[in-house]
Amino acid sequence: MSTPLLRIEALTAAAFQPFGEVIEASPTAQHFAINGGNTLRFHDLARLDAGPDGRMMVSIFRGQPRQLPFAVSMLERHPKGSQAFMPLSGQPYLVVVAPPGPPPGVDTLRAFLASPQQGVNYAAGVWHHPLLALHQACDFLVLDRMGSGPNCDEIQLQHKVMLSL
Amino acid sequence: MSTPLLRIEALTAAAFQPFGEVIEASPTAQHFAINGGNTLRFHDLARLDAGPDGRMMVSIFRGQPRQLPFAVSMLERHPKGSQAFMPLSGQPYLVVVAPPGPPPGVDTLRAFLASPQQGVNYAAGVWHHPLLALHQACDFLVLDRMGSGPNCDEIQLQHKVMLSL
Repeated sequence: MSTPLLRIEALTAAAFQPFGEVIEASPTAQHFAINGGNTLRFHDLARLDAGPDGRMMVSIFRGQPRQLPFAVSMLERHPKGSQAFMPLSGQPYLVVVAPPGPPPGVDTLRAFLASPQQGVNYAAGVWHHPLLALHQACDFLVLDRMGSGPNCDEIQLQHKVMLSL
Repeated sequence: MSTPLLRIEALTAAAFQPFGEVIEASPTAQHFAINGGNTLRFHDLARLDAGPDGRMMVSIFRGQPRQLPFAVSMLERHPKGSQAFMPLSGQPYLVVVAPPGPPPGVDTLRAFLASPQQGVNYAAGVWHHPLLALHQACDFLVLDRMGSGPNCDEIQLQHKVMLSL
């Protein structure tokens, strides 16, 4: 039996809503002029969540590009806080998620192609694949939780799925 | 009397230390491999500060480019929280700051040229000029405080200074 392909969807706020937020300067986001009209502020674009006992920290992740086709064989989740990724290197990237809850079956996985202008924020507990950079080593600004206690669960999938563009 | 030029310095962590942090994937920052070796994490790069009653939010600022030479005639500060800017458009930008405390004289102003890979985090109360994008309309990811009460003081400088590259 060959490994099934996971369909890759365009990343939109509506499609991603079960998993968190898309961080982008969208005309549908709340925005207004500041700084004497010089600047548009696209305001409060994601629900940053450090939990009751944590704080938000900012880091940079530098991911090596994945080779396609890529076999998705594991997922992780951060039960105690959200995790946001904003691309800094002008390249698209892939996002693989599954709803929070018990370890997901492959039939619940969703894959999205994010543009170089789109960040994502995974809500606490949302299953996701680690960073899937494409084409070159890529930097991402990452906002996640600093706090006590373990905050990363990892599972191996019972069946693999393939990603290909 | 002609308006004096403000000297523009290279942006380094050491030079910027009185005002906050430089957010960059610097080899001198704490960093370590994650995601099975695929990714380097440059860890916890700035002191995000939402104060005791606020929370951090993430926004995108889209700034129109400033025309040089540019006259610096005002500054602002956010007394209740930090404010971080990370460039998303691959362009350098200018940063003008003065130490926290009473309204600064022009002799205390510092100007820095930030590279497209360098973000800045202004500590609470640090005087700074609003966004100074260069060359084209530029987007920045911004991390600042959401919370009750006024959080922006603005002053007009008694004497202007000029920025020029």
